[in-house]
Amino acid sequence: MKSLLDISVILRSRDDFYILTHKNPDGDTIGSAYALCRALQKMGKRAKVLCSDEIPNKYKFIAKCAEGEDFEPRFIISVDVASTNQFEGALLRYSGSVDLCIDHHMTNKNYADITFVDAMSASASEIIYALIKILGVQIDEEIASCLYVGLATDTGCFKYSNVTAQTHKIAADLIEKGIDLGKINKILFDTKPKRLISLEMLIYKSLEYFFQYRCAIIVVTLDMMKKTGVSENELEGIASIPRSIEGVDVGVTIREKQSGIYRVSVRTQEDVNAVSICEEFGGGGHACAAGFTFEGDIDDLRSEILGVIKEKIKV
Amino acid sequence: MKSLLDISVILRSRDDFYILTHKNPDGDTIGSAYALCRALQKMGKRAKVLCSDEIPNKYKFIAKCAEGEDFEPRFIISVDVASTNQFEGALLRYSGSVDLCIDHHMTNKNYADITFVDAMSASASEIIYALIKILGVQIDEEIASCLYVGLATDTGCFKYSNVTAQTHKIAADLIEKGIDLGKINKILFDTKPKRLISLEMLIYKSLEYFFQYRCAIIVVTLDMMKKTGVSENELEGIASIPRSIEGVDVGVTIREKQSGIYRVSVRTQEDVNAVSICEEFGGGGHACAAGFTFEGDIDDLRSEILGVIKEKIKV
Repeated sequence: MKSLLDISVILRSRDDFYILTHKNPDGDTIGSAYALCRALQKMGKRAKVLCSDEIPNKYKFIAKCAEGEDFEPRFIISVDVASTNQFEGALLRYSGSVDLCIDHHMTNKNYADITFVDAMSASASEIIYALIKILGVQIDEEIASCLYVGLATDTGCFKYSNVTAQTHKIAADLIEKGIDLGKINKILFDTKPKRLISLEMLIYKSLEYFFQYRCAIIVVTLDMMKKTGVSENELEGIASIPRSIEGVDVGVTIREKQSGIYRVSVRTQEDVNAVSICEEFGGGGHACAAGFTFEGDIDDLRSEILGVIKEKIKV
Repeated sequence: MKSLLDISVILRSRDDFYILTHKNPDGDTIGSAYALCRALQKMGKRAKVLCSDEIPNKYKFIAKCAEGEDFEPRFIISVDVASTNQFEGALLRYSGSVDLCIDHHMTNKNYADITFVDAMSASASEIIYALIKILGVQIDEEIASCLYVGLATDTGCFKYSNVTAQTHKIAADLIEKGIDLGKINKILFDTKPKRLISLEMLIYKSLEYFFQYRCAIIVVTLDMMKKTGVSENELEGIASIPRSIEGVDVGVTIREKQSGIYRVSVRTQEDVNAVSICEEFGGGGHACAAGFTFEGDIDDLRSEILGVIKEKIKV
């Protein structure tokens, strides 16, 4: 694997960068993409972030930091994108031509010419932080805000078990760049639209337990979304609800994407591997947080996933 | 004000310490008390933590780190206790005889012989961390766990606007002492008893908005607690619910303590001062999180506090 130093040498010698993010963009893919984009721009390069979906409202404030003119790309980078099936829409055309992929998913599919994966990093933003340091670009308040958003969202605000001392050290450094920490955390973690409260009440009503309360499943249907007015990109934190219930080892969130198509998120305690569950359905992710897409009947989905979980938690 | 260095000299010269915590103990008063207790014990001193209430289950794991024999105190310390009306039951007898108070509340009443207040510290545990460093005691895993609990709980896991770069630097250092971060965060922030979900649903039903949705009030009655089986010390996070709703500047949580006695928590956005609201009722706290106790009829309480809030938010 090439080192970040090797990569910094390559980036210095190239220009006209497109930086690709994954579909259903979260704070880490957006934060690391815009941080890198602005850093490259500060080096006098042309760089642009591409996202197949609309950027969720709460992340829009960071997208302002690296606007620029249009140009044809001559070097394609992806950040926080484990596999080309994380590309959608306008980004699909780049699936076969990614020059550099920077990621922190152990399950990275190695689809790029150069791949840098550090699975010990809690967020892709931590890697981008190190890369920007090596590139010698000064981290200004805007870059710091982007990286902080990535760091904080991928760790549930420093709560998940992926957090390391390094995560906190980087956070301290970013705060010293003058970011508006109170405002950012408020936007990311402490602002719940009223409609989301209505949806959560419906979700709690859908809650079902299995295997002596060791598994909990919640369902979010299109009908529930319509009734409450909640949009797709507001559902980010929902998947952590079932596992957060005391005693639950495997939390499953089933989201109806279209009639007959479901996105399933699996969150597990440390002694159960979420990837090993999701791989049975062609999905992937991290040891404690993984997912897959299912086409078919929801009752089949439910019984199939319960079958797999039963085996994995050795009921 | 005496410096932490002065205080370290005094502690070195004394022995037989009682360390007092505040009523309704939270992670910071418990964490900083046990960290200091263990540090003093490691210096060969006798030290003991006193708490008027039972320690909440989720904090019991840290209380194990500093057990010891019984003895009569010759030096009384309080930590994270802003006022002697934070003492209750068996601790009331020490109200007039606290030798040293270490605190981070701006509203500290200066009731001790020696008072050290640093209102810039997000938690009392940050001050105790600095003090232990000055005392020259090595921070072992147990002390680090105590301090981390204090740091993390008083900042909503590094979410609140009181967090500084220093908070994260200390967290990084504590993590390097080998604490079981994943387990601790899980216990503190990601384990919700099923009964708490039932209570939250009742709470959301009680939710009322005032002043064009700028103020939200929730009520927790004794009847709701009885119905769901939730105990007093499980309510710690409840007070943050109303303010976390989008657009709400002042969130009020009314908890019925006994028939006709209510504990009111006020949480505000940065442009409204929670203390100035609660002081009208004889309470206090921090700029964005304060509280008071009210005796009387809940309808009177509601109309009185709405009157004060209306004035403060200049409707």
